[in-house]
Amino acid sequence: METRIERDSMGTIDVPADRYWGAQTQRSLGNFDIGRDTFVWGRAMVHALGVLKKSAAAANTALGELPSEVGNLVVQAADEVIAGKLDDHFPLVVFQTGSGTQSNMNSNEVISNRAIELAGGEKGSKDPVHPNDHVNRGQSSNDTFPTAMHIAVVCELNERLYGSVKQLRDTLAKKSEEYADVVKVGRTHLQDATPITLGQEIGEWVAQIDFALERVREADTATRDLAIGGTAVGTGLNAHPEFGKTCAAEISKETGLEFRQAENLFASLSAHDALVTVSAALRTLAGALMKMANDVRWLASGPRNGIGELLIPANEPGSSIMPGKVNPTQCEAMTMVATRVFGNDATVGFAGTQGNFQLNVYKPVMAHAVLESIRLIADACVSFDEHCAQGIEPDHEVIAHNLDRNLMVVTALNRHIGYDKAATIAKKAHAEGTTLREAALASGEVSEADFDKWVVPMDMTHNN
Amino acid sequence: METRIERDSMGTIDVPADRYWGAQTQRSLGNFDIGRDTFVWGRAMVHALGVLKKSAAAANTALGELPSEVGNLVVQAADEVIAGKLDDHFPLVVFQTGSGTQSNMNSNEVISNRAIELAGGEKGSKDPVHPNDHVNRGQSSNDTFPTAMHIAVVCELNERLYGSVKQLRDTLAKKSEEYADVVKVGRTHLQDATPITLGQEIGEWVAQIDFALERVREADTATRDLAIGGTAVGTGLNAHPEFGKTCAAEISKETGLEFRQAENLFASLSAHDALVTVSAALRTLAGALMKMANDVRWLASGPRNGIGELLIPANEPGSSIMPGKVNPTQCEAMTMVATRVFGNDATVGFAGTQGNFQLNVYKPVMAHAVLESIRLIADACVSFDEHCAQGIEPDHEVIAHNLDRNLMVVTALNRHIGYDKAATIAKKAHAEGTTLREAALASGEVSEADFDKWVVPMDMTHNN
Amino acid sequence: METRIERDSMGTIDVPADRYWGAQTQRSLGNFDIGRDTFVWGRAMVHALGVLKKSAAAANTALGELPSEVGNLVVQAADEVIAGKLDDHFPLVVFQTGSGTQSNMNSNEVISNRAIELAGGEKGSKDPVHPNDHVNRGQSSNDTFPTAMHIAVVCELNERLYGSVKQLRDTLAKKSEEYADVVKVGRTHLQDATPITLGQEIGEWVAQIDFALERVREADTATRDLAIGGTAVGTGLNAHPEFGKTCAAEISKETGLEFRQAENLFASLSAHDALVTVSAALRTLAGALMKMANDVRWLASGPRNGIGELLIPANEPGSSIMPGKVNPTQCEAMTMVATRVFGNDATVGFAGTQGNFQLNVYKPVMAHAVLESIRLIADACVSFDEHCAQGIEPDHEVIAHNLDRNLMVVTALNRHIGYDKAATIAKKAHAEGTTLREAALASGEVSEADFDKWVVPMDMTHNN
Amino acid sequence: METRIERDSMGTIDVPADRYWGAQTQRSLGNFDIGRDTFVWGRAMVHALGVLKKSAAAANTALGELPSEVGNLVVQAADEVIAGKLDDHFPLVVFQTGSGTQSNMNSNEVISNRAIELAGGEKGSKDPVHPNDHVNRGQSSNDTFPTAMHIAVVCELNERLYGSVKQLRDTLAKKSEEYADVVKVGRTHLQDATPITLGQEIGEWVAQIDFALERVREADTATRDLAIGGTAVGTGLNAHPEFGKTCAAEISKETGLEFRQAENLFASLSAHDALVTVSAALRTLAGALMKMANDVRWLASGPRNGIGELLIPANEPGSSIMPGKVNPTQCEAMTMVATRVFGNDATVGFAGTQGNFQLNVYKPVMAHAVLESIRLIADACVSFDEHCAQGIEPDHEVIAHNLDRNLMVVTALNRHIGYDKAATIAKKAHAEGTTLREAALASGEVSEADFDKWVVPMDMTHNN
Repeated sequence: METRIERDSMGTIDVPADRYWGAQTQRSLGNFDIGRDTFVWGRAMVHALGVLKKSAAAANTALGELPSEVGNLVVQAADEVIAGKLDDHFPLVVFQTGSGTQSNMNSNEVISNRAIELAGGEKGSKDPVHPNDHVNRGQSSNDTFPTAMHIAVVCELNERLYGSVKQLRDTLAKKSEEYADVVKVGRTHLQDATPITLGQEIGEWVAQIDFALERVREADTATRDLAIGGTAVGTGLNAHPEFGKTCAAEISKETGLEFRQAENLFASLSAHDALVTVSAALRTLAGALMKMANDVRWLASGPRNGIGELLIPANEPGSSIMPGKVNPTQCEAMTMVATRVFGNDATVGFAGTQGNFQLNVYKPVMAHAVLESIRLIADACVSFDEHCAQGIEPDHEVIAHNLDRNLMVVTALNRHIGYDKAATIAKKAHAEGTTLREAALASGEVSEADFDKWVVPMDMTHNN
Repeated sequence: METRIERDSMGTIDVPADRYWGAQTQRSLGNFDIGRDTFVWGRAMVHALGVLKKSAAAANTALGELPSEVGNLVVQAADEVIAGKLDDHFPLVVFQTGSGTQSNMNSNEVISNRAIELAGGEKGSKDPVHPNDHVNRGQSSNDTFPTAMHIAVVCELNERLYGSVKQLRDTLAKKSEEYADVVKVGRTHLQDATPITLGQEIGEWVAQIDFALERVREADTATRDLAIGGTAVGTGLNAHPEFGKTCAAEISKETGLEFRQAENLFASLSAHDALVTVSAALRTLAGALMKMANDVRWLASGPRNGIGELLIPANEPGSSIMPGKVNPTQCEAMTMVATRVFGNDATVGFAGTQGNFQLNVYKPVMAHAVLESIRLIADACVSFDEHCAQGIEPDHEVIAHNLDRNLMVVTALNRHIGYDKAATIAKKAHAEGTTLREAALASGEVSEADFDKWVVPMDMTHNN
Repeated sequence: METRIERDSMGTIDVPADRYWGAQTQRSLGNFDIGRDTFVWGRAMVHALGVLKKSAAAANTALGELPSEVGNLVVQAADEVIAGKLDDHFPLVVFQTGSGTQSNMNSNEVISNRAIELAGGEKGSKDPVHPNDHVNRGQSSNDTFPTAMHIAVVCELNERLYGSVKQLRDTLAKKSEEYADVVKVGRTHLQDATPITLGQEIGEWVAQIDFALERVREADTATRDLAIGGTAVGTGLNAHPEFGKTCAAEISKETGLEFRQAENLFASLSAHDALVTVSAALRTLAGALMKMANDVRWLASGPRNGIGELLIPANEPGSSIMPGKVNPTQCEAMTMVATRVFGNDATVGFAGTQGNFQLNVYKPVMAHAVLESIRLIADACVSFDEHCAQGIEPDHEVIAHNLDRNLMVVTALNRHIGYDKAATIAKKAHAEGTTLREAALASGEVSEADFDKWVVPMDMTHNN
Repeated sequence: METRIERDSMGTIDVPADRYWGAQTQRSLGNFDIGRDTFVWGRAMVHALGVLKKSAAAANTALGELPSEVGNLVVQAADEVIAGKLDDHFPLVVFQTGSGTQSNMNSNEVISNRAIELAGGEKGSKDPVHPNDHVNRGQSSNDTFPTAMHIAVVCELNERLYGSVKQLRDTLAKKSEEYADVVKVGRTHLQDATPITLGQEIGEWVAQIDFALERVREADTATRDLAIGGTAVGTGLNAHPEFGKTCAAEISKETGLEFRQAENLFASLSAHDALVTVSAALRTLAGALMKMANDVRWLASGPRNGIGELLIPANEPGSSIMPGKVNPTQCEAMTMVATRVFGNDATVGFAGTQGNFQLNVYKPVMAHAVLESIRLIADACVSFDEHCAQGIEPDHEVIAHNLDRNLMVVTALNRHIGYDKAATIAKKAHAEGTTLREAALASGEVSEADFDKWVVPMDMTHNN
């Protein structure tokens, strides 16, 4: 492998000639070989670092802190980072310095070397674009990394999560409307209860998803506050006094999402409670999806010896010999995702408590876990929507049969023949295994016409 | 023990003569002997059930569903429950039916029997006030219990938590102002960093607490939606169509806190995501308090071989022989509370996912855990405030000594003598164990007057 | 209230005249008013402190560190603590000093004052029995409190948990045998599967409980190592070199359970990984019980529109009007307990990581959470056993009906008529809603006699 | 892309011509696009499936269930899977069917197609080696996947974890011996305490690691029980009665690690409590490592304003200008790993409770999380060892200086001049900021010679 020499305050080090990264990235590669297969930062974080560095260069240029030629070069190189053209030059893993310093330096090094190249210079020369003096100008890892964390999370929420969850949510909402007139047995304590409509049952899932999404959006709003401008300890030492505010405005422009500089920059470095809040909201969302998926698989259980009121798509062989055995695999994937999101949340909550003085050094693991949860929920919602939710259908026959057998509709007789007689009829039906209708007619207390007039399950659902 | 006979749909049962509860409470007592020492419901939940039952009676009376004499009797008895006069008549534990049915019936039975007594009737006669037909009118455990859960949590937040946390927060905010001019060493990665003021350091704690309180208030708002009016499955069967809304208005009136009927009553019964959200916000708050308490105890560590920049009150003997050993016991209590709140949150998050169909049957354990977290945080904040925070003082001598030794102020020399010379001076100071000032003067690069003009730690804090 | 004056190294303080506790307990009462309603230490911890102090006195006497008159007095007073006679003199809460110092001093003070009283002396005089010099001789809170934690946990496991869990386990094992011949539908993915026996199904629950109990017993063994003899930092300074070993032997004698001094006393003070291990094992046990309780309630779901294969006792009114609606309330209590145990485990796991240097100061919250989990699991098992498990019965009719309808038995036809024909028959049965038998006979491929000879679900269960 | 046609019971589907997988793998690829970037199964699981399939073929051949030519072909193909030659043919993600069916089929398909190729046949022809009839003979996903989970976890523990952790553990043990004579200040409650040796302090870390490793080994032992032979529901239907036992023996032979068939196969399918136990033990280990890493970074805090008793390697630039600022980045990576392991454990614990009837359908997410924890701990231990632990050195000067200032050694004077005079001397030293020695000599109570004879910190450590 061909190499070139890069240099930092510790001295020189060999770097692969075709990589833009520099000395500090190379050192981190050597020092942190932890979970390399799956824990290299992905697109979301690299994109966010690109956005940040571009915005910082623009802000510094505007404030007279960077010559515009240098600023333009940085912007140009950062644009390539944003576009994903340089992803292969971000080889570091999550488990590194707890401040994310090495990933911040990775972005500084890649951008400066690529900018140097664009300017016709020599990689590693730090001329005309210096990774620290120019790309990192007015910044410290301690404020840039949490800024990038917030950018990454907010972008992923807005560009990945909301749309994916909404896709599923809208399918369910449509199903809820579509089946507004399908009356069925309600169930509490897993026991038969008074009737509801299938539309109401599905609508409940939608309501939980909507509630959780509101919580995620509140958390999103709280995550728009950026640490930028705080530099090393929160005082903003070495940054232009207007830098943070200006940079935040540039970030908003670049992403099309409104960000602002945080009011208390000290807290932005030593705590990441906004991410803890996002994580908690994702947990609530995962819980809502888990409840929905559990309901779906129980309602589709059978084919003969379960509840069997819903039919779900058969996407893969269930049993090679037995028809009708449709394993609820999308439900299983969704609920597994939920348990993973819960685990990620445990990580984030724990790590969030462990700040000391002016810095919390669990930044990378927190960012990674939140981003993973977003990705998994989004993917799982799309998968569930396309391979399950859209194909959910009621088994009208089973639903009607179950409703017909449901004794809880007896409550409709109370007001007509009194509680005692009604209870006697229900007791008789239960003992003899008949429907309520059969027992009622047999009792002589109710005529066929009255029964059919009085016992109208749809009326009991208050569906309107 | 003298007893009387009470009766429910399963038959008769003996009840202590001097207790107002009835058959179902008595059965639950026999059936659920789990954690009796510490898991009997406390004031918050009993109060909430009283508020609910009073409001329900008022609403039913207003809607013509209850004769006003009966309604008034219920209101009168419920007022005694609210006031705490009948707490001894609520003997049930948390680990009972997952819908909280038995505690709902406990309140129905106590209120009806006390109302009967007020009316001069005979306890157990259900005349003139029937526990089901009157006290529980238009209600089901499935909607009343989650309604009471929300009332209890919202009341505890507003009447216990906010004030207690604010007491501590305000003390810290005052300290932050008071010590705005105390310049000290900053610390990142536990390593010496550029200066901050003690005011900024303490202000960071306040900022975290404020952030967390905002989250709690958002969650509080989301908890104002009540299940009332949904009855058994969410359809509102057997309740007056205006009952839920009217009852919520009465609850608002009674508590002075604005509640409303939830839009989707199905979700109010089969999920408790509002409580999951409150719990998560309390977790964030606990995390903020933990970070603060950890900072305090590290800053007060010593007396000789720690950081020693803060002095905290000595409330109890630390070491019987060694003066100055002040164990940070309030910090320890606070951080232990934090770990407990995290555990409670794990319980709530888990239980919140386990709803099936029209009911989540983990209601009691969720309500209990949230209420416990509120209580513990509130108590711990008051304790910490009175026995620690108010007495926190800087050890000016140590702070000055540390700052003096801090080499990170070297960055202030950069712009005057250049990076290279500044670094050389710092290196020399480090190697020889001197202060930066000593090394700078010894280097001949900086005059005494210049050093004192250029290296002004307060200026590096950007404190304004 | 009458008071007397007590004194410690901070000075004097008034103590209620009729209480045996002294100055440090009184200070803690004033300083830690956190969760007082439910977090005062209970029997298990007070008993353990009594055992420890008695054993320490015996050991010190044997080693010549205490005059035997003094030793005897301490033993006598400690015996009263062990017996529960002085519980009212242990008023402190869990959220105190993280070393448990104040509860250790509480025991020292109560025992010395009670011993003084027995000797005819004056409470508070510290003569002839001094709380520190005699009762706490050769000890420090840092080693006594974790020793008491281990004693308490081990005693509760052995005297409360094992018996209670075994009671339930044995009932289930008996049921498993009893129903060894009841063939029924198996279920995987909630879908019908090949047959099993009810005995096998219940036996699975037993196997999980047995597995979990083995884990608890392994953890129990690891908890027999005691910190005693380590004193303040683990070096054993101020204790007789044989004290720890001797005291551990006395504790074994007193409890009838084998304890020993830990090999590494430093680790015994600064970590409580044995308790983390116990907690994790309790979590596994809770998980096993949750799975069992979930299976029970699903198998008992209905009465008409669920699975309905099991009948469980009706302990309280389910629905006032509908017969047969039996809410699985014991299952609900059990699964709620499980979520609480999970929460406690989260607390313990978190707190267990937070030791620094020579001490972990989360001792009380860890001990409390583990003890609470033990208590809850034990109580819930007895409750579940008596009010549910013992009364579980198969609904033979439903089971037979379901089995009869189960198409998965088609696999038994493969070897006789080939896969293709068997699959065709199953497909026909599924499409037409008939039983497999009906479809098989209608196909003309199988005679009635052959079908009944070939398709024998019991044979498919490999039950032997 | 060139394709070929593959077929399963649902019909035909196009598969890339150069891939060995078949129809079911291809369907899963289309149906489960969840977290594809990072959640494709890695080496550990693919290796385990290879081991399992090879062993199953060997067992079936030995039992006469497979012709030996077919068996040999399967063995040959499976050997390539084991060796990692076919990893690119395992494209499925964790979030699929909860039974892992699709990954089981993936291995069946790849092995059969590769075996067919080896035999000169045509991929997709299922001749002469059929994925179901031959490769999956006597198996079901329900027993193979949990078997593979156990193989993967046990192999990773034995081939990755133990060695890596031991590497770090042994370095620490060596340091503990090396510094057995370095006396230093002890610390409890973060406050100065009586002396210990650095060897004792480091030895405590070793003791915790050893304790945790014992727990992992206990859990490892419990994981040697395999589900194999249980087939679809645990009854072993369609497997040769000796298959499970024989296959387990083959697996032992192949891996060199002793496995056995589980006693209760029903529990092996519907619960994964062994993995829950492994996960919990890994949590304890992570907690121990976190405590150690925290101690290291606090002891190395400074360089001027922290504790500074340890020196750790400077692996990357800390501050570009300030010498001596060595960020404890390996500690940060380690503690971040710990929080991740805690999160994984939360996932595993939760998922472990969610089995229903004869199957737990959270298999993949549980296996993945446990394997991730093993990998992270192992990698982090090696990283920490090589880049931090090996380079840890005491700063003798700071240690001596701190010890000299420590007033807690006053306890050594007690027995010579009495408690009161000793306390007075300590008080004087504290008030005047002198060392104890200075105050003692100034008091006139102790001669220089006596002081140096009496106050010997090393003696107070009971180091021997």
